[in-house]
Amino acid sequence: MKKLPLLILLIGLTIRSMNAQQALTREPQLISPEIHKDKSVTFRLNAPKASTVTITGGWMNSVGVTRPSAEMKRGEDGIWTYTTDVLSPEFYSYSYVVDGMKTVDPANAYVIRDVANVSNAFIIDGGYADLYKVTEVPHGTVSRRWYSSPGNNKVRRVTIYTPPGYENSKANFPVLYLLHGIGGDEEAWMGLGRASQILDNLIAQGKTKPMILVMTNGNVSQEAAPGEGSEGFTKPSFMLPQTMDGKFEETFGYILKFVEGNYRVKATKESRAIAGLSMGGYHTCYISQNYPNTFDYMGLFSPALNNKPEDHSESPAYQNLKEKLVIQKRNGYKLYWIAVGKSDFPILLSGIQDFRNQLDGIGMKYDFLETDGSHTWANWRKYLTEFSQKIFK
Amino acid sequence: MKKLPLLILLIGLTIRSMNAQQALTREPQLISPEIHKDKSVTFRLNAPKASTVTITGGWMNSVGVTRPSAEMKRGEDGIWTYTTDVLSPEFYSYSYVVDGMKTVDPANAYVIRDVANVSNAFIIDGGYADLYKVTEVPHGTVSRRWYSSPGNNKVRRVTIYTPPGYENSKANFPVLYLLHGIGGDEEAWMGLGRASQILDNLIAQGKTKPMILVMTNGNVSQEAAPGEGSEGFTKPSFMLPQTMDGKFEETFGYILKFVEGNYRVKATKESRAIAGLSMGGYHTCYISQNYPNTFDYMGLFSPALNNKPEDHSESPAYQNLKEKLVIQKRNGYKLYWIAVGKSDFPILLSGIQDFRNQLDGIGMKYDFLETDGSHTWANWRKYLTEFSQKIFK
Repeated sequence: MKKLPLLILLIGLTIRSMNAQQALTREPQLISPEIHKDKSVTFRLNAPKASTVTITGGWMNSVGVTRPSAEMKRGEDGIWTYTTDVLSPEFYSYSYVVDGMKTVDPANAYVIRDVANVSNAFIIDGGYADLYKVTEVPHGTVSRRWYSSPGNNKVRRVTIYTPPGYENSKANFPVLYLLHGIGGDEEAWMGLGRASQILDNLIAQGKTKPMILVMTNGNVSQEAAPGEGSEGFTKPSFMLPQTMDGKFEETFGYILKFVEGNYRVKATKESRAIAGLSMGGYHTCYISQNYPNTFDYMGLFSPALNNKPEDHSESPAYQNLKEKLVIQKRNGYKLYWIAVGKSDFPILLSGIQDFRNQLDGIGMKYDFLETDGSHTWANWRKYLTEFSQKIFK
Repeated sequence: MKKLPLLILLIGLTIRSMNAQQALTREPQLISPEIHKDKSVTFRLNAPKASTVTITGGWMNSVGVTRPSAEMKRGEDGIWTYTTDVLSPEFYSYSYVVDGMKTVDPANAYVIRDVANVSNAFIIDGGYADLYKVTEVPHGTVSRRWYSSPGNNKVRRVTIYTPPGYENSKANFPVLYLLHGIGGDEEAWMGLGRASQILDNLIAQGKTKPMILVMTNGNVSQEAAPGEGSEGFTKPSFMLPQTMDGKFEETFGYILKFVEGNYRVKATKESRAIAGLSMGGYHTCYISQNYPNTFDYMGLFSPALNNKPEDHSESPAYQNLKEKLVIQKRNGYKLYWIAVGKSDFPILLSGIQDFRNQLDGIGMKYDFLETDGSHTWANWRKYLTEFSQKIFK
């Protein structure tokens, strides 16, 4: 490329300075995060007036409630730095706290919203993490579509992944309905979940069948993620109303109807799977009971089964649950898969144990995977990786 | 809804605290921005240790290079506040600067990345701004797809809006190719551009013909936006290589081929339009010259025509430009539309004036709209609103 004329650069710089509130000089660009060859990582933040800056990230093990953080060190130039130990392969999110205020890394253009928090991310190569990267394999298409849900008096947004080649094929595909956790929405599995990358890579490796992913919004009081629905830009409260009251289960049929009426799917039990994390595991449990003979594959990822829905909601979806479970067992299915990290919340672990006792009590078969780790996206990405290889085969 | 059991709330709070690094107590949620009935807006930020906090937002008129900012005021509780005057209707972005460091509003869940900066947004109702809202009208589908671009040795990502009803129709649709500015990418028109909302609303009002929008990535050294391509999460430099060197124009044929081979389009000149902002206006100018008899509608929004590509690139796309313009005139077209804000950069205004002189010199007709304002998304949203109503009719 020849040298660009000054005029272009000048406009460039000017626009940049408008956006970034910087002076009309090209500052040296701060590199953060910098991933070193040994897989340690250095973070940098220009905050000359701050008195304390800490960093928190997915490589710091959560112990109980609070994820630890580390202090960054101020250099004479006002740039705070922190270097990790050698990190294991993973897709890591992180953020800074500057004098008590959480902030993203201005040097990292990739931001992900999860629930109502925004963080940055980076990937350390290797192992599972190679599946979370965009690699040179055929890519599926990710669409945001709207479906009619008269049971909620709403048109609602849904995120749909179709596998590579879907558009130029006449084949019908199986469908995995993939549900988010509390406070999440139809964007969650695309952001920290890396679901489209996981599927692209596993399909290319021949390990996972080409399938459609349907990522719903399980908060039926919302049309869509913040800013994407007519509710506007209001920050959702952590726990939305109508989140675990049965309405999502009651109205799930509209999603099935939409997907099966609008995509080339195999509309049979053996070609339908449903899975979800935390609250989405709870939803998976009750949707699969309430839509008999609909799903052959259930995936409960760190499911929030400590909740006893029959105690707090009169929804028809939560009536006669014991009988429904027996019917689900009698109807048969190919896989009932429960996974959880052994350091998850004790209340959640005991909820899962109670549910397993209930399954054992009626002789209902399930696979149980206990992993390291706790209630984290690191686990949920792994569980999707594992579960997606077990279904439609 | 019945009261949720304590267990659920406890898990809720715990997960929330993990994400937000907060203690296990439910803090009162800070409301920011708060839009008052008179359309003034109050912003709040909890930053007890900061010594100065400023806010900058789209309602502050840029004068020349630097957008002004306003100081926020610290309350005794450590919460900084700022209240605007009554604001005119608009989709506004804003951000804070805390002790010299730019940050987003932790109380606003909606973040938009533009170029390599992240900001928050809100809407003041009325006028054009009502078109930028998600309203109760049928919604189109927005897909991220990948197309093969052998001329760039890449598979590249493109954002495609199909109008409401596209999937359940057998009709063919016209296509508007909609290009971003310098440093932007295939996400730009969906974020600050609000293109899908504008089209949904105008189509519902019968003012704009149902059409497909094709939003490309004009930086041919990129596969995709940060984090969405195999380049990973690196923050792009402000001006990428191969951004205005002719390669995008040379390889635009792969995009046309992909769209016309994969969507139900009217593949005729009268059903093809191309438009773009700033660098995208430059691209529009040269693509429309290099693909003769391809487009009947050209939209140059604040185009960066000050650049003289023939002076700095040997690309075939930039050879014989005068002759190509004469051929474009001779071939005929329905609309050549140029719009710019009268407070735009002088260098850009004079580039446009030179180009108009050239058009006048060869008797090539065009429509010219001069508006208030400068080089801003506020103008580009309006220009899309206007231009989309003029095409395919």
